[in-house]
Amino acid sequence: MAPTIHPFDGVRDYEVRLASKLVKDAHPADANVHFVQIDRLDPPKADMIKYLEAEKYGGPLPPISRVLYCYYYTNTLDFNKALVNVTVGHVITKTQLPKGVVGPFLPEDVLDWEDNCTQHPVVLAEIEKLKLPQGYSVRCDPWIYATDDANEKRPLVQFFMYVLANNGHAESNHYSLPLKFSPVFEAFTKKFIRIDFLPGGFDATTTPTQPWQVVPGVEYHPDLNGETIMRQPKPLLVVQPEGPSYSMDGSKIDWQGWQFRVAPTAREGFAVYDGWFKGRQVFYRISLSEMTVPYGDPRAPYHRKQAFDLGDCGFGVNGNSLRLGCDCLGVIKYLDGVGINSKGEPFVQPSTVCLHEQDNGILYKHMNYRTENAVVARKREFVVQTIATVANYEYAVNLKFVNDGSIDIEVRATGILSTMPIDENVKVPWGSIVGPNVMAAYHQHILSFRIDPAVDGHKNTVCYDDVVKLPRDEFNPYGVGFVTERTFVEKAGSVEQSPFTNRTYKIINENVVNPISKSNVGYKIMMPARQMILADEESFNAKRAAFATKQIWVTKYRDHQLFAAGEFTNQSQIDTGVGEWVKGEDPVRNDDCVVWATLGFTHIPRVEDFPVMPVETHNIHLVPFNFFDRNPALDLPQANNNFNKSVLADVGVSANKACCKTNL
Amino acid sequence: MAPTIHPFDGVRDYEVRLASKLVKDAHPADANVHFVQIDRLDPPKADMIKYLEAEKYGGPLPPISRVLYCYYYTNTLDFNKALVNVTVGHVITKTQLPKGVVGPFLPEDVLDWEDNCTQHPVVLAEIEKLKLPQGYSVRCDPWIYATDDANEKRPLVQFFMYVLANNGHAESNHYSLPLKFSPVFEAFTKKFIRIDFLPGGFDATTTPTQPWQVVPGVEYHPDLNGETIMRQPKPLLVVQPEGPSYSMDGSKIDWQGWQFRVAPTAREGFAVYDGWFKGRQVFYRISLSEMTVPYGDPRAPYHRKQAFDLGDCGFGVNGNSLRLGCDCLGVIKYLDGVGINSKGEPFVQPSTVCLHEQDNGILYKHMNYRTENAVVARKREFVVQTIATVANYEYAVNLKFVNDGSIDIEVRATGILSTMPIDENVKVPWGSIVGPNVMAAYHQHILSFRIDPAVDGHKNTVCYDDVVKLPRDEFNPYGVGFVTERTFVEKAGSVEQSPFTNRTYKIINENVVNPISKSNVGYKIMMPARQMILADEESFNAKRAAFATKQIWVTKYRDHQLFAAGEFTNQSQIDTGVGEWVKGEDPVRNDDCVVWATLGFTHIPRVEDFPVMPVETHNIHLVPFNFFDRNPALDLPQANNNFNKSVLADVGVSANKACCKTNL
Repeated sequence: MAPTIHPFDGVRDYEVRLASKLVKDAHPADANVHFVQIDRLDPPKADMIKYLEAEKYGGPLPPISRVLYCYYYTNTLDFNKALVNVTVGHVITKTQLPKGVVGPFLPEDVLDWEDNCTQHPVVLAEIEKLKLPQGYSVRCDPWIYATDDANEKRPLVQFFMYVLANNGHAESNHYSLPLKFSPVFEAFTKKFIRIDFLPGGFDATTTPTQPWQVVPGVEYHPDLNGETIMRQPKPLLVVQPEGPSYSMDGSKIDWQGWQFRVAPTAREGFAVYDGWFKGRQVFYRISLSEMTVPYGDPRAPYHRKQAFDLGDCGFGVNGNSLRLGCDCLGVIKYLDGVGINSKGEPFVQPSTVCLHEQDNGILYKHMNYRTENAVVARKREFVVQTIATVANYEYAVNLKFVNDGSIDIEVRATGILSTMPIDENVKVPWGSIVGPNVMAAYHQHILSFRIDPAVDGHKNTVCYDDVVKLPRDEFNPYGVGFVTERTFVEKAGSVEQSPFTNRTYKIINENVVNPISKSNVGYKIMMPARQMILADEESFNAKRAAFATKQIWVTKYRDHQLFAAGEFTNQSQIDTGVGEWVKGEDPVRNDDCVVWATLGFTHIPRVEDFPVMPVETHNIHLVPFNFFDRNPALDLPQANNNFNKSVLADVGVSANKACCKTNL
Repeated sequence: MAPTIHPFDGVRDYEVRLASKLVKDAHPADANVHFVQIDRLDPPKADMIKYLEAEKYGGPLPPISRVLYCYYYTNTLDFNKALVNVTVGHVITKTQLPKGVVGPFLPEDVLDWEDNCTQHPVVLAEIEKLKLPQGYSVRCDPWIYATDDANEKRPLVQFFMYVLANNGHAESNHYSLPLKFSPVFEAFTKKFIRIDFLPGGFDATTTPTQPWQVVPGVEYHPDLNGETIMRQPKPLLVVQPEGPSYSMDGSKIDWQGWQFRVAPTAREGFAVYDGWFKGRQVFYRISLSEMTVPYGDPRAPYHRKQAFDLGDCGFGVNGNSLRLGCDCLGVIKYLDGVGINSKGEPFVQPSTVCLHEQDNGILYKHMNYRTENAVVARKREFVVQTIATVANYEYAVNLKFVNDGSIDIEVRATGILSTMPIDENVKVPWGSIVGPNVMAAYHQHILSFRIDPAVDGHKNTVCYDDVVKLPRDEFNPYGVGFVTERTFVEKAGSVEQSPFTNRTYKIINENVVNPISKSNVGYKIMMPARQMILADEESFNAKRAAFATKQIWVTKYRDHQLFAAGEFTNQSQIDTGVGEWVKGEDPVRNDDCVVWATLGFTHIPRVEDFPVMPVETHNIHLVPFNFFDRNPALDLPQANNNFNKSVLADVGVSANKACCKTNL
């Protein structure tokens, strides 16, 4: 008997194995089926709503088939997509995609192509010209080729080349020593295409490869970074002597009033499903949807530096194996991902998602100044975390469920800057010098979070409130009054930012009235105003990432519309995601709608970001707004030290002790 | 012998005792000197620079006198300020301030006036008309009178009246049951002035006091809130078995490369001084400078609701006695404040400031995808916290020193909304209904943080960088390029917000070049764009709080310019702070300048904010920007579980374990 599986559970290894077998069986053996990604599809929402209702209120569970998508190449260069029903065991569809559609690359392929590049005779000849001294060698980083030519249909890979110092020490920071030539290969044929030469001066002028001038590298690894006097913080342990405050049943978590499911996914890292707080439905699904990283250096070939970290690579595919005491503290539960190799064989990606609780200071406090009695509760969070390494960069995505009914989406960017060579004594206005002869171009990180809300049900409305001054008149004689003005998003589209009217986006349910406020129940989306994509609107960068042009998008829910820039982003020429989905006339008010929140930040690198970058952290808060009939955290125990067992520090002498009364 | 004292140390009780004695001695006995605030002045900076240099590099410490300021009333209604040198023991100056200048109120006075109000015959007569049922009584909250009349010179107090339910239970939430009359008294004479009646409908119409209609209160206190099924989080302890990672010598703290001093202050809560990180000077002084809370309800008398929480009341004066396991977790060091009574007698305000360390997730991480080796360090913070109760509201101010050289200023607003009566079935566009017959008007919390920088010395420059698109031309043929443009603040003034150019404020030192970036060393100020004060520019609200009109101000340093809205804010008619100090032509570039960062948020109350509000948190980050020659946190030990001792959670069953290989 197959193990019990919930439709929202992440893909299982045996499902992958079956799907890849069925796909291979559907092609002739000499097609050389070469998989690049396999994961399960989300079940159709209409079916799932029935399923979840039966689950919640009783009744037979309707059967929901498990369907997997498979991306794969045949005959080396033909890109295909198949949908496989692994519940009944058949291929539903398989389609060869048009030339020019390029799927995500598999990590093992990328490693293979690295070897191909550095061993290719043309590249070796170029390396020879460097006349590298003893102890130095060359390493390359494959880079997504991106787009600058509407006629380019080949799947290409651009290799940035670096010097590896320290006698080939594997952890030496090659990003510190970029070279000035950059081979381009065709991806799966490994065919050499050309070498791009990289500018080192102010303009796009390039020079033939010269002997490499030795400069010191800037190292991050403890073996190499030269730090000898280490700071020694004392241990600070998070201890939960009675264990964590949640229970877990398969993928379902029950924590402090929150109930939801977590599934690791290949593309997004993870998705959370079917969220309820205190018996009230809040969301159907939340996940990171896409991230694009366009660079601002206008010189070829840097103009093509625009990664789509989910669509081109995959956050789950590149998820770190998280480790106790490193990536989170306390009592940790890990979830494994399921990776694949090119043969479609699954493997366990250990611990790509971690779950834990943390304290986050006071949640609320009031002290009655008459009695000096204080009421205090602590803010406790349940964190779902994944950390993905996309070549040089790391991104930590935390979805935090808070004990006051709010949700905090947090992104931390860290890792290593993508670097370019720069000549001695040159400055450029689109980049920062971060080490000897190494420049980090200005760039943007623009993420899209897909929020499929279910605020007291699936019919929801997106609106926004502006806070505006009242005119000075007989009703406002002192000129102090201000009010809110509400605008509804009627049709699929986007919302402009307006920080100076305190514009706040809300997801409300127009069918449910809060008995206290007499207004519709809802959640607000709190995110500060940010610069959106800077590339001009006719650029490929902007056309491929329409989502990155606006902070908030609203679409009508449709199955399988999960990815903000579209399903296939690698070398895409145009956005096939939200930019397309808002072009119709879909009504979204009081309908099953989806919110796409664009979290963007422009990154002007600083020297301190090198050789490894302290986290830059950005957040989106989803906060109940007239959803409950009072503070929903009044049922928390009062903070007290019998429970929290904090202690006094035995340091110093308080300067203010009233110990000097006799001094006068 | 007097105990050793550092010029930056907070005031001592014996200093207060001496100062108040000298002031009393300088007045005739029948003047009835009545103190309202005593604290020490900051020493002159020119002297302190010499002192700190001698302290750092050796040499005799120049004598720095301790000078206290005393605010006090004489003859009941004359407001005075004296400066007292307590080192040599003489009154430097004493000045009777002009009529109309009103100082901060002393908490004990306020409590006294409460009693006076509720026992006054006119008020008793009004209470009588309520015909309160058995078990109900009346409580009042004194409220800062604020300003609507240029001719008003009397120090006034407005009392908002509430029903106290629950048989007078002291912790019953009277804010839930506001009444419709509001007596006004003269402050120190306790003279009855008038009763304002409060509107209950849409407009400003008021009615004579009617018998009170019983409605249920919304209670926050655990004894009263009716919560019976409590959530039961498991303990989550912060344990530091080897103690904290800092040492303390008097007011000086040495933690993980940071060195600075902390002093509790009456007005600001605390100030931090003389901050260095890794031997590099960063700042001279940082503190909260002011907060104003203007309300948006235009109806009299609400149009006057505008508190200045520091200038009118005092954050230190109203600081909570923080408690182990309640206000912070772990190993905690407390600092005491020094309060005074009206006789000028000092008393210990226990534990108004707490110091502790906390973990804040990963600081940086990079995983080499070729070897799967990861480098990870944890973000550790040293927190200086105070929490002030200003009548209904609580504010937690956290200044966090981070182990990467950054500083995070955090404000959490919590406590209880200021409420107004509202009739059944009425809605108003400037407020939210948060309980039966209780409305919370829209308002703003606008704080000013004073940052007196010393980035590699005292001559600093404020500038801001905008990120702008390059035009599409031969140098930018693909339309992807963008660059930064820098603007310098040459003269004292303010800076406009510009989120869509990613405008980032920086404090740089134009005399010091970073050897790597070849640009000036600096710190950036990261704060999101926000709505500033909404009251129109001709209103008293805006004129009294010029600081609240702009996000960033820059002034030339002058001794004793510490408070953004000026020294005396209570019933002020015009700003006497930054709005005045920028009116000259002070050059501030490459000079000793001061930055005033306005952290404002518009608060549209939600039902969930009542009866006690989950924290709303806002931050300002000060981040080294091309200050160090690489990531200054490479000398941190790698995160590891020998050190952090985290454990696996024993919950659930992982859905993804590769345990099903035989299922096919």
